[in-house]
Amino acid sequence: MTRYKAIISYDGTDFSGFQRQPQARTVQEEIEKTLLRLNSGHPVTIHGAGRTDAGVHAYGQVIHFDLPQERDVEKLRFGLDTQCPDDIDIVAIEVVEDDFHARYNKHSKTYEFLVDVGRPKNPMMRHYATHYPYPVDLSLMQEAIVNLLGTHDFTGFTASGTSVENKVRTITEARVERDDKTDFLVFTFSGNGFLYKQVRNMVGTLLKIGNGRMPVSQVKTVLESCNRDLAGPTAAGNGLYLKEIRYE
Amino acid sequence: MTRYKAIISYDGTDFSGFQRQPQARTVQEEIEKTLLRLNSGHPVTIHGAGRTDAGVHAYGQVIHFDLPQERDVEKLRFGLDTQCPDDIDIVAIEVVEDDFHARYNKHSKTYEFLVDVGRPKNPMMRHYATHYPYPVDLSLMQEAIVNLLGTHDFTGFTASGTSVENKVRTITEARVERDDKTDFLVFTFSGNGFLYKQVRNMVGTLLKIGNGRMPVSQVKTVLESCNRDLAGPTAAGNGLYLKEIRYE
Repeated sequence: MTRYKAIISYDGTDFSGFQRQPQARTVQEEIEKTLLRLNSGHPVTIHGAGRTDAGVHAYGQVIHFDLPQERDVEKLRFGLDTQCPDDIDIVAIEVVEDDFHARYNKHSKTYEFLVDVGRPKNPMMRHYATHYPYPVDLSLMQEAIVNLLGTHDFTGFTASGTSVENKVRTITEARVERDDKTDFLVFTFSGNGFLYKQVRNMVGTLLKIGNGRMPVSQVKTVLESCNRDLAGPTAAGNGLYLKEIRYE
Repeated sequence: MTRYKAIISYDGTDFSGFQRQPQARTVQEEIEKTLLRLNSGHPVTIHGAGRTDAGVHAYGQVIHFDLPQERDVEKLRFGLDTQCPDDIDIVAIEVVEDDFHARYNKHSKTYEFLVDVGRPKNPMMRHYATHYPYPVDLSLMQEAIVNLLGTHDFTGFTASGTSVENKVRTITEARVERDDKTDFLVFTFSGNGFLYKQVRNMVGTLLKIGNGRMPVSQVKTVLESCNRDLAGPTAAGNGLYLKEIRYE
């Protein structure tokens, strides 16, 4: 048995998220179907570092899986890449220790969130950035976003009804800039873990702050109160990218 | 009667091209359907500066159309923009002279062509750039592309069976660069008019030159021989963008 770690990218538009579920097209199912063919018809289960929701994209999702024999990793990558559907790409594969686990090995993640601000929007990017038709003041968002840095209880920024008990997470990078070329807002968040819909809720709140409909202090208010009702709306998934995962 | 000129952008992925045709979704049909609603149910015909093929995108297509009354152009733009399908955007509208014609008024066009070179490709860009899996030498293409500048008979670079008689056109800008951020090849062509599939055939030939399977001199050979068989294959439409149209 040989364990492989793969970095994959995918366009989330036509997927009901990463994780396998009945009656829905998922990234996991498509890769497992391809691995089945490459493994002489024997089923292979893949494990992802994290789940991504419907419409959410990835440039650097990490998965692991086992095959009975050690293979040339570049041939394996090429075969898997070319046989997977067009909206999934296999960026890199390497052999790892048998006890490596994409989800349970300690890692930090970076997410990016793209926002197409104002009108007219860019039709080519309608599945790849969230459209926000209202004007925003970048400096207000930059002032607010730094309050997310550090270790906090992020209960107020997660979806209500989440089953995870410990909602304390550490954010090591939180910034927002305007891309010179596209004029899009680019939010970047890195940390040791993110709660369900946390990034989308943080972005939804920051956009409201940028638009002047919430005070800059609202980020602190949500963190301190742990009250989801005080945060902004959940930004749509189509602007979200799982950018990179770094293992310790 | 008031004549309006509009700059529009669209994602060509789900269109069978710009021009209305039976049993197919086209840009023209969708805009005319929207204008019908905005014009109290009276049909409005739009005229485009040029036709784009299936899958081809536009940032700066120009159309003109007439409405019985003069309207506030920003309100008209907003109404048309928000009521058109998501893959069409109305960038700008202005009132023009009654004899302005998007197609027949003298103008020059700029096309851009994006190529995602090598593997793995970017799945997010699979409808927005043409994937070329082979290595290319940028400098060979840059050496060849300058031969397209100037006034030539472009018969060798158009689709066979084109009905246009005069195939002499002038290209004023022809360059190819590598985008630092995306690592994509960006071809730019400007000129007073382009023949059917001309840009895609020029790009297909240049890629073969970049890949070393045609000599740098092939561009000259195709121009001088007017022989389509000597040019490279037609590059796929999904990398092509009608970028800008400038009227004199």
